[in-house]
Amino acid sequence: MRVLCRKLYLPMSMTEQMTGLARQSKRASRLLTRMSTDDKNACLEAMANALSENAEEIQTANTKDMDTAREMGLSQAMMDRLLLDDARIEGMATGLREVAELPDPVGRVLDERTRPNGLILRKISTPIGVVVIIYESRPNVTADAAGLCFKSGNATILRGGKEALNSNQVIARIMVEAGCHTSADFPEHTIQVVPTTDRAAIPELLSRTELVDLCIPRGGEGLIRAVAECSRVPVIKHYKGICSVYIDGTADTDMAVAIAVNSKTHRPGVCNAMETLLIDEAIAPQLLPLVADAMQEVELRVDETAMGILGNGVKAATSEDWNTEFLDLICAVRVVDGIDGAIEHINEHGSGHTETIVTDDAATAARFQNEIDASTVFWNASTRFTDGGQFGMGAEIGISTDKIGARGPMGLAELTSYKWLGMADGLVRE
Amino acid sequence: MRVLCRKLYLPMSMTEQMTGLARQSKRASRLLTRMSTDDKNACLEAMANALSENAEEIQTANTKDMDTAREMGLSQAMMDRLLLDDARIEGMATGLREVAELPDPVGRVLDERTRPNGLILRKISTPIGVVVIIYESRPNVTADAAGLCFKSGNATILRGGKEALNSNQVIARIMVEAGCHTSADFPEHTIQVVPTTDRAAIPELLSRTELVDLCIPRGGEGLIRAVAECSRVPVIKHYKGICSVYIDGTADTDMAVAIAVNSKTHRPGVCNAMETLLIDEAIAPQLLPLVADAMQEVELRVDETAMGILGNGVKAATSEDWNTEFLDLICAVRVVDGIDGAIEHINEHGSGHTETIVTDDAATAARFQNEIDASTVFWNASTRFTDGGQFGMGAEIGISTDKIGARGPMGLAELTSYKWLGMADGLVRE
Repeated sequence: MRVLCRKLYLPMSMTEQMTGLARQSKRASRLLTRMSTDDKNACLEAMANALSENAEEIQTANTKDMDTAREMGLSQAMMDRLLLDDARIEGMATGLREVAELPDPVGRVLDERTRPNGLILRKISTPIGVVVIIYESRPNVTADAAGLCFKSGNATILRGGKEALNSNQVIARIMVEAGCHTSADFPEHTIQVVPTTDRAAIPELLSRTELVDLCIPRGGEGLIRAVAECSRVPVIKHYKGICSVYIDGTADTDMAVAIAVNSKTHRPGVCNAMETLLIDEAIAPQLLPLVADAMQEVELRVDETAMGILGNGVKAATSEDWNTEFLDLICAVRVVDGIDGAIEHINEHGSGHTETIVTDDAATAARFQNEIDASTVFWNASTRFTDGGQFGMGAEIGISTDKIGARGPMGLAELTSYKWLGMADGLVRE
Repeated sequence: MRVLCRKLYLPMSMTEQMTGLARQSKRASRLLTRMSTDDKNACLEAMANALSENAEEIQTANTKDMDTAREMGLSQAMMDRLLLDDARIEGMATGLREVAELPDPVGRVLDERTRPNGLILRKISTPIGVVVIIYESRPNVTADAAGLCFKSGNATILRGGKEALNSNQVIARIMVEAGCHTSADFPEHTIQVVPTTDRAAIPELLSRTELVDLCIPRGGEGLIRAVAECSRVPVIKHYKGICSVYIDGTADTDMAVAIAVNSKTHRPGVCNAMETLLIDEAIAPQLLPLVADAMQEVELRVDETAMGILGNGVKAATSEDWNTEFLDLICAVRVVDGIDGAIEHINEHGSGHTETIVTDDAATAARFQNEIDASTVFWNASTRFTDGGQFGMGAEIGISTDKIGARGPMGLAELTSYKWLGMADGLVRE
């Protein structure tokens, strides 16, 4: 596969290669508008079955990737992410079957109005068109992302880690072949993998604004910043999750401790884990020791006031700690002068991902939820709930902290755009 | 005013100037979340009154601009756009009063769900934050855009034509003063005009992704392309409107002629005017002569088949004509092989703005409306209806052909984003 692609593409310049790839996707995206929901679902089922049935072929490709990765000296953690065992291949298949069962996000009537002149207007959800997904090691993202994009009527161009190219290409080919065998309407370029590991491919692809409609990068902050920096097409993303929990003076103590502990320790390595704990000065002297006690495995980095309460055994926070996504059992702790201080801190240092207030007072909660500028703002719930599955989206392609296009967890509906349809009986403007 | 601003800003670098300006806007945008709808409306009414009452001061500034423009040798058309007479000042005031009467687009519940674990989720419309508006001559855009952004809870940074700086600054100052006098909650930096005509200001401002949330450029294609090219913040725009009318073989002849004539000649200089007429080969021999007869003042540029029908007196279309926004009494005409040819032509040459089908057949119309990739797709209506006012939006800040964020006419609702609010009773993740 790789050799074939090299043969096909190397004589062309990178610009020609990427333009050709994007043009094929654009054409596929036009044809996808003709596929019925049933047809799309049948293809997704067939793709799921094909992945299961061809697990051996996938594993052969994956073994090649693992060998190369070992030679490249990749870390054990990265090797683990790259590995496709039977369970993970079954996981991809199950994921596609679940996407098949979700309602079609295209064609929903989002708004409808009849104007005084008789013009009927309908705002209808549509596919976005061509979506480029850029991600790191995990090859299972190939199936997940391609499945979600296909169900929402989008053509996908996938660019995974260079160490996963063989795995990604085999997965995509199996899915495309299953689609083509299942429906005559399935466009063969619906799912494409960038057939080169050359880094120059990304800026080329992301400069084709007339062909590519959206880019969703998934991975570490470095990858995402590099993509956002070079892209001329819209990018939906989140750089990091610096999530805070603010415990108001009116909070129930047990609830506050439980939410802080869960937000921090349930899964510290993910983007919706708490990184900063803000405590109202009115309750800090009682509450802070309880929190510290309940989170003994967590390294607290505290401001001066908190230090005064907890004693000198605790580590002092640096100004950098307020802007850091630790992704670890580390927590920055700050005592604030109530809701005003909390809002100011979060709007200054937060990453716009998820913020929680713990309070018994509805008016305070309402103010927090109104004034905090973040994708998700919880009242008396752990930050860990910002997640497509938890939101009932059924599947998630990522989380956005952007404000144009999707914000928060992105499921199928967040992979759609809209258009206006107008119906009349020969209406002209006077 | 200009001298004062020079004094204030010139010692700083452009980067410092623009960062300072954007930071003030960001702070204002946070404070705007606290203003009630009534408060915002009272400010808009006061702004409208203040513009009327200070018409003389506005005209003094405008006369200065007109003098400079004359010295610069601006065309009569541009001078006319720059002029603020009593009627135009009254127009700005009326516009603000109309915006005051529109419903508040912020705080709408867009979606609501309760999860099995009891988590209540609400998707709520929010302001976008800081919106940069870049436009050309007309200083009345200053009041219109600032009013719409303010009503939707956004802080605005305005950058008009350099020939209009005095007019724009006075309009913005009068509006801000009226706001401050009316409500203690009105943030003084809600409306700011870029205080320099230096072109370097634009890329500086549009690189502050952490402070600026959106840029809306309005004007000619050159301006918009230059803005999109240099911006690191999201841009919502349309480059041009190459709108088509496709007359299907099943169309009612009178209706088809009326829609074609209205789409082309009602106001040929605007973006929703028809530029290309596509006619089904099945009906072209009868229909084309009728259309030509009804549009005698229009220069037709026709393909070979149409030439065969109309005779050699007609001008032949070049391949460039299919991609041209004439903005004039010129129309490209092509005979296509029915709906397939029409869809192919439009998806290849259209600008994603507005496309119309004239047909008596509902299935053909449905196919056209489904497969055409444009912001607005009409069935048996003139292309001229793509307009915020015609859509019942009450006011329009522009039209978007983008697919991420707003698409089509942009009113107040299209100047909002959303966030998720989650409510529970001490919920943690198991």
